[in-house]
Amino acid sequence: MTQPKSRNIFWHEGGIKKEDRERLNGHKGVCLWFTGLSGSGKSTIAHETEKILYERGVHTYVLDGDNIRHGLNRDLGFSPEDRTENIRRIGEVAKLFVDAGLVVMTAFISPYRRDRDRVRELLEDGRFVEIYVEADLETCEERDPKGLYKKARAGEIKEFTGISAPYEPPESPELVINTSRETDARKNAMRVVRFLEEHGYLSAGGPNSPG
Amino acid sequence: MTQPKSRNIFWHEGGIKKEDRERLNGHKGVCLWFTGLSGSGKSTIAHETEKILYERGVHTYVLDGDNIRHGLNRDLGFSPEDRTENIRRIGEVAKLFVDAGLVVMTAFISPYRRDRDRVRELLEDGRFVEIYVEADLETCEERDPKGLYKKARAGEIKEFTGISAPYEPPESPELVINTSRETDARKNAMRVVRFLEEHGYLSAGGPNSPG
Repeated sequence: MTQPKSRNIFWHEGGIKKEDRERLNGHKGVCLWFTGLSGSGKSTIAHETEKILYERGVHTYVLDGDNIRHGLNRDLGFSPEDRTENIRRIGEVAKLFVDAGLVVMTAFISPYRRDRDRVRELLEDGRFVEIYVEADLETCEERDPKGLYKKARAGEIKEFTGISAPYEPPESPELVINTSRETDARKNAMRVVRFLEEHGYLSAGGPNSPG
Repeated sequence: MTQPKSRNIFWHEGGIKKEDRERLNGHKGVCLWFTGLSGSGKSTIAHETEKILYERGVHTYVLDGDNIRHGLNRDLGFSPEDRTENIRRIGEVAKLFVDAGLVVMTAFISPYRRDRDRVRELLEDGRFVEIYVEADLETCEERDPKGLYKKARAGEIKEFTGISAPYEPPESPELVINTSRETDARKNAMRVVRFLEEHGYLSAGGPNSPG
């Protein structure tokens, strides 16, 4: 399990398993689930984290609105039922990426606690890392990078999280990043990377293995 | 583009792109779409191909009934509409895996030509490789590894491809593997690997790049 990357790569009977792919990659497969209000900085931190991990040779992928809402979930809207189905499918796709041995990051508001907990249950223990990207509504509304809060206040967008739809913060996330207090995306991303290091995700096996 | 694996890994402005991930992986991202009757050998060849590629350090993943029908597509049945939605979602997930820089293999009957062609259109040119796993119905019915043909003949399964639902063979697949003629899975998988080699998929760039 501690063999160097791309050496002594033999698969077990029955085909290639997650553990084999982790050995090839030199790190664990894990889902980093970023949750928080629109404008809190989920996507920015995820992509910044990806850059740092890439420089270290870690295999990553970011699922976000850009590649999911226009693709897999193009048939879904923003009703509570559709939001739930949206998160269910993203969770199932994240599970496949974890099985493929990647560090997959998801950057969606994912406002309902129950939906996020279902994804946690879907994944093996230690493979779901919930990261609460915290920022007060005023901060998010000031940033308003896509002008969505303005539209929501004008009533042009219905059921907008924080304005006309609820956001349920995580009760015991693995990590909390408050972007009202610390606005530097690289510093925030470094906290994610350090979490991964300290919990053994950045090696294929060993004593700190999350299992 | 010809830098060795895991060296000189720098990302471009704007974040990590498919090309960056391909440089890290040392090969292209591509979808190998296996199609054919139940029992034709799609899944067997896909997993055999995965073993050979794994030994060469290629990053792969197989999407098949085991990880899709009980997960992402658990809400779908076998009506023509649900089969279409099944393939649409698998196509969208395959697209994400290709973007992540992996060789993703899909092993589904995928009986409708139109559904497969839509997946081809979804992916960039050269990123969709259709592999027709051909076997006559008698051969598949003799093999009947899951006893499904028997159930279909007894009327216990409705709309079973080849018996009570149509199969539309590809008109111009990139590769045809006839498993009635050649039953050795490893030999058949080697044909897939040779195809990938000859068309430049197993290096991150260069003159044979499929773009």
